[in-house]
Amino acid sequence: MEDIVYLPPKDLPEAWYNVLPDLPEPLPPWKDVESGPSRFELMKSVYVNKCLEYDENYKERWVLIPEATREAYIHAGRPTPLNRAWRMEKVLDTPARIYYKREGTSPTGSYKVISNISQAVWAKEEGYDRLIACTAGTQGSGLCYAAATFGMKAMVFMFASAYDSRPGRVLHYKQLGADVIRSPSDRTEFGRKILEKDPNNKGSLFIALQELLEVFREEEVRHSAYLMGSGNTHNILFQTVMGLELKKQLELAGENEPDVIVDCAAAGGNWSGICLPFVKDRLDGRTRTRFVACQADGWAPFVDGEYKYADMVPMNPLAKIYTLGERENPPQIWAQGLQVPWGAIIPSYLRSKGIMEARKYSEEEVVPAAFQWIRAEGYIPALEATYAVKGGIDEAIRAREEGKARVIVINISGHGYYDVAGYRGYIEMAKGRK
Amino acid sequence: MEDIVYLPPKDLPEAWYNVLPDLPEPLPPWKDVESGPSRFELMKSVYVNKCLEYDENYKERWVLIPEATREAYIHAGRPTPLNRAWRMEKVLDTPARIYYKREGTSPTGSYKVISNISQAVWAKEEGYDRLIACTAGTQGSGLCYAAATFGMKAMVFMFASAYDSRPGRVLHYKQLGADVIRSPSDRTEFGRKILEKDPNNKGSLFIALQELLEVFREEEVRHSAYLMGSGNTHNILFQTVMGLELKKQLELAGENEPDVIVDCAAAGGNWSGICLPFVKDRLDGRTRTRFVACQADGWAPFVDGEYKYADMVPMNPLAKIYTLGERENPPQIWAQGLQVPWGAIIPSYLRSKGIMEARKYSEEEVVPAAFQWIRAEGYIPALEATYAVKGGIDEAIRAREEGKARVIVINISGHGYYDVAGYRGYIEMAKGRK
Repeated sequence: MEDIVYLPPKDLPEAWYNVLPDLPEPLPPWKDVESGPSRFELMKSVYVNKCLEYDENYKERWVLIPEATREAYIHAGRPTPLNRAWRMEKVLDTPARIYYKREGTSPTGSYKVISNISQAVWAKEEGYDRLIACTAGTQGSGLCYAAATFGMKAMVFMFASAYDSRPGRVLHYKQLGADVIRSPSDRTEFGRKILEKDPNNKGSLFIALQELLEVFREEEVRHSAYLMGSGNTHNILFQTVMGLELKKQLELAGENEPDVIVDCAAAGGNWSGICLPFVKDRLDGRTRTRFVACQADGWAPFVDGEYKYADMVPMNPLAKIYTLGERENPPQIWAQGLQVPWGAIIPSYLRSKGIMEARKYSEEEVVPAAFQWIRAEGYIPALEATYAVKGGIDEAIRAREEGKARVIVINISGHGYYDVAGYRGYIEMAKGRK
Repeated sequence: MEDIVYLPPKDLPEAWYNVLPDLPEPLPPWKDVESGPSRFELMKSVYVNKCLEYDENYKERWVLIPEATREAYIHAGRPTPLNRAWRMEKVLDTPARIYYKREGTSPTGSYKVISNISQAVWAKEEGYDRLIACTAGTQGSGLCYAAATFGMKAMVFMFASAYDSRPGRVLHYKQLGADVIRSPSDRTEFGRKILEKDPNNKGSLFIALQELLEVFREEEVRHSAYLMGSGNTHNILFQTVMGLELKKQLELAGENEPDVIVDCAAAGGNWSGICLPFVKDRLDGRTRTRFVACQADGWAPFVDGEYKYADMVPMNPLAKIYTLGERENPPQIWAQGLQVPWGAIIPSYLRSKGIMEARKYSEEEVVPAAFQWIRAEGYIPALEATYAVKGGIDEAIRAREEGKARVIVINISGHGYYDVAGYRGYIEMAKGRK
């Protein structure tokens, strides 16, 4: 059995798919905040400008991928492989055909490299020579890789808690030549003030962004660009390359259409990238593909949130999104990357229209599924991706119960080699429970 | 530029290449030890019998790969990709065309999975239901993966020093469902005696093997098989799949023949796997391909050793090999996997005939090359593989100096995601030196 569907690099998609013109209506627009500095101005002062154009209901359905970007995609392992999970199928005794896309084969270990490469090419065109991230993990790897690839500088503000608990990531940034800063830091006035009051401050996205803005303000001539990892509309445009590859790979495997695509979701950027190229057919009534987003219990805006105008990254204007709102002491879960209290604009809209099917899982549900998967398929998923694995296994069991030979696709957004501490913590925890 | 040469799974080689009939003379045979239990008997009591057949100057040039083995190879990511290192070429400003084979794409992160899958299939045929390893790292991953793949049990004796310093590997064994034992252990009388005298004993291959033999002796009916990782003649047979793939990939890339193949070498099993399929052409005078083995300074039997009958794994009979002999306090190096004081039989023979070109590098030489590589190519090599990287870079520089557009192939035997501690240790060390 051909159980890996490779797409040769020459068949890498030549254009990204922009879903906006195919939606039944324009997306709800951004709104500026009522007090404080204009977020529109703030965005323009740090983002790559060409990216912002795409966030504003851009009209073209197909956006040509620049040659430098395609070349870098290929060097970073695209198209990524699509595996058939036939060993898992046997274990589950399901008539379903399970496929999984392996985004962990990239040099940075996750799909985040897509968006960073894409933004970096435009950043360079716009004359910037330094890329800056605020991150707890994979986004930093993607950014540092993109910077190294295009001969640019990289600066990473990493939340102190993540810096201390993820030595593998810190190392990776440094291997790639980046300037890595544990935030709050003594590099900025904002950071110094926090450290004075609280030397053990664990950092946060808010603090890191304030430090970053200070760095931008200090540039006499702007030469840096801030790159977002995943959820903005332009990030999602880039990430459709995953779904476009998947479409071709399913054809090569002789499948007409997937019955269901399952992915994990924090803000939903990754989920959008794999699903969007299949959404139009569903909207047009040509297919009945289901699009499942698996969230973490306690961090499931698409399940438990409210759809309304709200603040997300405190750098963007307000947007109509699913949000859990302000919470005191939100839960800590093993998959840090899923700890996001809101959805991005596109997936939120699709959720409101019933195109996204959302569910949430507890760690107790996810972990046994992850171990079952690793023993059957071998490849270790990132902690975040174990939620997709659990969702896919549930779909396969349902197919068995209903006696349907469904086609199930699971997107494995990254590998779990850097998640040793998380997995081990769980094994220790499980021992303690006995 | 097509910078990754994928070979579709259907083109995976159908047979392994056995070099023995193509050598100018039979390999020097094994000899039993003069005192103590017969090593030939010892081997038969723990190894897979079919493997031992191949160690005895087996005559057939091509050995059909069983269907179950091919299927498992494909599931484990074979054929592995061959990348063109054109970013590295630019940095080095070399006319050479550098290719690198990425064995780290397997679910266990290294080429060791090849030999384990291959042995496991035969072990199962011979009726065994448990696989046992004595290991410090990647061999355990390969064995546990093979066991999980074929529904067998896995038992790993891991040297205490490695158990304590490589939490990622321990976790990986456990994720795959193995019984992981820190050796010396309280599971065996041998282990208990050592722990009584020295509770902090760091373990060794010798101790682990004694514990393993005790486990075998306790089986009323033998149901376990001991799998070696890499260097035995049968391991090397299996590993030729790397070189056979490489041959097809170079053809696809439009290259006639490689001018030089560079690999790291501990005992030389990995080096043999990638090089042997090209050796016959060189022996016949049809090509002038050079085969470079890069060893670690302090652990370079092919450079500094003597070619003579000697003891290697204290389970095998004596063999004619390059050996550094007994040493007090051998040096510790960052790449633990290269800390082997002898060469395997086949590569030792080829070294004695001048087919293998051997060199050694210090950490100081290797580390800067590794960082240069990571920044250019993105993929993080295992610490062991950085020696191959250094060797390949040196060849590319030489090609520049001599103005030759040579074809250089580097074998990257594994990824470095589990080598965080080693890489970080070096960064810290470098800081201290400033």
